[in-house]
Amino acid sequence: MEPVTYTPIGIVHSPFTSIVGMPVQSVAAAGIAGSIELDLRYREGLRDLVGFSHLLLLTHLHQVTSYALQVVPFLDDRSHGIFATRSPRRPNPIGLSIVRLVGMHGCTLHIEDVDVIDGTPLLDLKPFVPAIDNRQTGQIGWFAERLDRLQTTRADNRFYDQAEQE
Amino acid sequence: MEPVTYTPIGIVHSPFTSIVGMPVQSVAAAGIAGSIELDLRYREGLRDLVGFSHLLLLTHLHQVTSYALQVVPFLDDRSHGIFATRSPRRPNPIGLSIVRLVGMHGCTLHIEDVDVIDGTPLLDLKPFVPAIDNRQTGQIGWFAERLDRLQTTRADNRFYDQAEQE
Repeated sequence: MEPVTYTPIGIVHSPFTSIVGMPVQSVAAAGIAGSIELDLRYREGLRDLVGFSHLLLLTHLHQVTSYALQVVPFLDDRSHGIFATRSPRRPNPIGLSIVRLVGMHGCTLHIEDVDVIDGTPLLDLKPFVPAIDNRQTGQIGWFAERLDRLQTTRADNRFYDQAEQE
Repeated sequence: MEPVTYTPIGIVHSPFTSIVGMPVQSVAAAGIAGSIELDLRYREGLRDLVGFSHLLLLTHLHQVTSYALQVVPFLDDRSHGIFATRSPRRPNPIGLSIVRLVGMHGCTLHIEDVDVIDGTPLLDLKPFVPAIDNRQTGQIGWFAERLDRLQTTRADNRFYDQAEQE
């Protein structure tokens, strides 16, 4: 299949300088403050963004350098297929974060609930709209038994150190 | 900023062979059936995916060949900054769909609520988990006055035909 090339539109800044100890999802990162520095050439694209409380961020998880098809995710002690997990060690390591927009000055967006490492390239940002983005479902596979760990689990280096394709 | 290159992991098939008349979001595509053909080399990555009712799809909106910073989105008759809309004509045209998983045979995933054109390259698929992916918010900017159009609005060619950077 034809490769696809994107140029990041900006950079996400966060208090996290190491993967170890990070929250594993933005829903477990309540109040953690960071910012987005959007490339100046896209400034006009931010018009009317004030007024939205939450943003969807698509990020390039740049510290992931290879993928695995079977992983033991942070939230479990059993292995699963990579596409049945939210593990970053995916064939295309694109992260999905949902953050709060708390302020905007020029091309700097002040955000909270940040769950990415400082310096993460941003590929896209979209306004979060519950009527479009929320779903109600009880069918969540192995997560059903592991969601109690979501707020307390912290990341470790398993998906980053000397990772090799498996 | 350093460009990022991804190789699609599969292809999404849908009944839509033209943009014109398509639903504008997967939440407005209830019951529309399609499939995913995952590249055979990723087959092992599907283990334990059965058991999830909904999947997040990140797609490359391959028919979008340029971007605009100000657009009149399908749902409105006023223009907005591209990042305050869900318009496909973005600097990096990555689509986010939430579809139902209704069956799986080998590397073929049968899905419903499909809102992409036939042949759309798939970059990533993740299990949808309400505790991770849902947010409650009333602050949805200009969408607040336009959500009544979500189920009835259909796409047209505005973001695709002879599009030029603006």
